[in-house]
Amino acid sequence: MTRRLTDMSAPARLAADGEGLGQDELALAARNHGLPLEALRYDVTPPGLHYVLTHYDIPHVPDADADDWRLTVDGRVRRTLSLSPERLRALPPVTTRVTMECAGNGRALLTPRPVSQPWLVEAVGTAEWTGVPLRLLLAEAGVASDAVDVVFTGADHGVERGVEQDYQRALPLDVATGDDPEVLVAYAMNGAPLPPQHGSPLRLVAPGWYGMAHVKWLRAITVVDEPFTGFQQSVAYRLRQTPDDPGEPVTRIAPRALLVPPGFPDFMSRTRVVAPGPVPLEGRAWSGRAPLAAVEVSTDGGATWHPADLEPDDGHRWAWRRWTYAWTAVPGEHVLSARARDEAGNEQPLEQPWNRGGFANNLVQRVPVLCPEPSAP
Amino acid sequence: MTRRLTDMSAPARLAADGEGLGQDELALAARNHGLPLEALRYDVTPPGLHYVLTHYDIPHVPDADADDWRLTVDGRVRRTLSLSPERLRALPPVTTRVTMECAGNGRALLTPRPVSQPWLVEAVGTAEWTGVPLRLLLAEAGVASDAVDVVFTGADHGVERGVEQDYQRALPLDVATGDDPEVLVAYAMNGAPLPPQHGSPLRLVAPGWYGMAHVKWLRAITVVDEPFTGFQQSVAYRLRQTPDDPGEPVTRIAPRALLVPPGFPDFMSRTRVVAPGPVPLEGRAWSGRAPLAAVEVSTDGGATWHPADLEPDDGHRWAWRRWTYAWTAVPGEHVLSARARDEAGNEQPLEQPWNRGGFANNLVQRVPVLCPEPSAP
Repeated sequence: MTRRLTDMSAPARLAADGEGLGQDELALAARNHGLPLEALRYDVTPPGLHYVLTHYDIPHVPDADADDWRLTVDGRVRRTLSLSPERLRALPPVTTRVTMECAGNGRALLTPRPVSQPWLVEAVGTAEWTGVPLRLLLAEAGVASDAVDVVFTGADHGVERGVEQDYQRALPLDVATGDDPEVLVAYAMNGAPLPPQHGSPLRLVAPGWYGMAHVKWLRAITVVDEPFTGFQQSVAYRLRQTPDDPGEPVTRIAPRALLVPPGFPDFMSRTRVVAPGPVPLEGRAWSGRAPLAAVEVSTDGGATWHPADLEPDDGHRWAWRRWTYAWTAVPGEHVLSARARDEAGNEQPLEQPWNRGGFANNLVQRVPVLCPEPSAP
Repeated sequence: MTRRLTDMSAPARLAADGEGLGQDELALAARNHGLPLEALRYDVTPPGLHYVLTHYDIPHVPDADADDWRLTVDGRVRRTLSLSPERLRALPPVTTRVTMECAGNGRALLTPRPVSQPWLVEAVGTAEWTGVPLRLLLAEAGVASDAVDVVFTGADHGVERGVEQDYQRALPLDVATGDDPEVLVAYAMNGAPLPPQHGSPLRLVAPGWYGMAHVKWLRAITVVDEPFTGFQQSVAYRLRQTPDDPGEPVTRIAPRALLVPPGFPDFMSRTRVVAPGPVPLEGRAWSGRAPLAAVEVSTDGGATWHPADLEPDDGHRWAWRRWTYAWTAVPGEHVLSARARDEAGNEQPLEQPWNRGGFANNLVQRVPVLCPEPSAP
C-alpha cells in the first residue's frame, strides 16, 4: 500500500518539553540561512548575506529562458496583461531600500517551540530593490469595482501539511494599489538581476510586510472579488493560540532591534568576549508598522534601560536604522539587549509573544558577553 | 568570581543517544549555510548559494580599506614580502574552477553525532577563483632549504575549546609550491571581488582539499622549519576514534556524488514527490584525491546499482562533474542514491565512516521519493 501525500506531509506540531531539534528542522536550517549578525554593520546587506527562506525548491529558470518568462495580470480586470521582464525593465524604474524579515524569525526561541524553520533572530536583511510599482500595472489592467484582494502566484511548487500547491499569497486591494508604501514588482536587487534564491526573474516587494508577502518567482497577479483563502493565507501565517482558532493574519513587521555582537566569539557557544574598557555598541532597528521612535539598550540583562542614539532614516523609511551606545565593559559576565519602539507605540516585549506558528516573535535579544579579568587568560 | 574563557568554551563532545540538536548547533546552522541541493544543477554555483562556514566572525573590512590590506610573506624566506591586493591584481591572473566542500559535511548524519556545525550533505559549492599562484609568491620570497610547512593566517579571531586564536592552517611545502594542483592566493570569485563571507579581500584556494585549508581573510603566509602544530592543525581537523588518539590529519576531499532531488518537496519532511513515468535523474560528483572513475545509481535503497553517464571534466579537473541516469518511476516509495568512485580506488562507503570530529563522512546520500498512484491525491 503506497503512502499518499498526506502520509508524508505531517500536520503542524509543537516540540515536547526539552526536545532538541530534529533532522527535519535541521534540513530547513541547513538550506535556508540567516544574516550573520556581524553583517548588521552594513546599511545594505552584501549579496549572499541577506536571509533566505524558500518553502519548496528554488525554481530552475535558466538565464536563457528568463526573457521568455511571462507575468500574467488577470482576474477582475478590464484587460489581461502578459508582461515580460524586458517590458518591465523598459518602464520607469523605482528603487526602494527595504528591510525584510521572515515572519518566523525568533521561532526557535519560543517555549514550547513550534516545529518548522528554526530561526533564532537572524532572519533579516536589507536590500535595494528595483522594479515597477504594482499600482501602475494594476491601473494599466483596470481593476474592477468589486475587487477585494490581489493574489500573487509564484513558480515554486510543493506540498505543505498534505496540500499540494504553488506558493500563493494575497494583499488587500488598498495595500496593492497604495503608494505608501509602494509595492513593487522587482527585477533587480542591489543593482543586479535577482539571484535565483531571491526570485529570479521577478518577485514582489511589499515594504513593511513580513517576508511571506514578497512572493518570489512571480508569474501571476490575479485580482479577485472575495477574500483569498489559499493555504498560505488562511492556514499558514496566522497568529493562533489553539489549533481550531482561526487566528489573526500575519501582516506587517513588528519592531525589533538587534546588536552587532561586540568583541569576538567562542566558536561553539557563540558567547562574546570583550576586553575591559570602552566598547562601542551598535546595531540596527526597524518596524514595518510605523516609523521608529526610540531604541533603548540594557547591559545588565534588562534590569535597567538607557536611550541609544538612533540615526535618521535618510529617506529610507522602509529600511532599518543604525543605533549606537557607548558602553564601558568591566570584568564579569553581562547580558546585552536592545529594545525598539515605534511611533504607533508598538514596543518589543520582555516576555515571549507565543503563538502556535511561531510568528512575529520580537522578544528582545539577549547577547551574553564575558569580560575576563585583565590578568586572566 | 568571573568565568574564564575556558569556562564558556566547552570541550568537544558527542550527542547522547536520541539527543536532538541544541541551540548551540542551531546558532551555527542558522548563520552558516549549505547549498540548496537543487542548485547542483549549475556548473558554477550562483553567488549566495555556495556553502559558507565561518569559525568566528566575518572580519569587518570596509571597501575603502581593502586596498590598505597587506599580505605578509615571511618566516624561512630570503626576503619578507608585503603584498597589497592591487599588487596581486597586477600579476598575471590564473582562474581555476574548484569544488569546495566542508570537512564536516555529513557530520549530523553520524551516530553518535559529534556536536559542532551540523551539516547534512549540503556543505559544498563550485566557484571560479581568480588569483596568483602561491608557488610564484613563495619563489619571489625565496624559500629556505630547511622549510617544512607553510602556515596561513586569517584575520578571523575567536576562541575554540578554550584556545584564543587567529584562524591558522598549514600546507606541506610540496603542496604549497606544487603546480598540480596549483594553490592560489585569490582575490576574485566568479569574476567579482571576493564577497565578505568568502574572504574579502584575499583568501587561499587549495584545489582538492577540504574547506579548512582555504584560509580566508588571508593576512600572513609564514614559512616554517618544523611541522605546524596550531589548534586547527593538530587539535581540530583530525580523524580520531578516541579523545587521546592523535589521529590522522584531514586533508583532501573524499569522493562523493549527490542528486538534484527530483520532483517537488514536502515543506517540512523534504520528501520528494514524482509522477509515474520517466524521471531523468542528474547530479554532481567529485573527488579531491584522484580523477573520478565512475558514478553508480541505485533506485532501490542500495540493493542494486547501475552505471550513470558521467560527463567529461572539460578541463576542470578540480570541479565536480555532472552525471545523469534515466529512471522510470512506478507508484510506490523509493530511496535514490548515487555513489562515486575515483581512479585511485576511493569509493563512497555504504556504512558510516565515523570519527569523533565528524569529518569526511562521505556515506552515500539517501533521497526518499514518493510516487503516488495516478488516481491518488
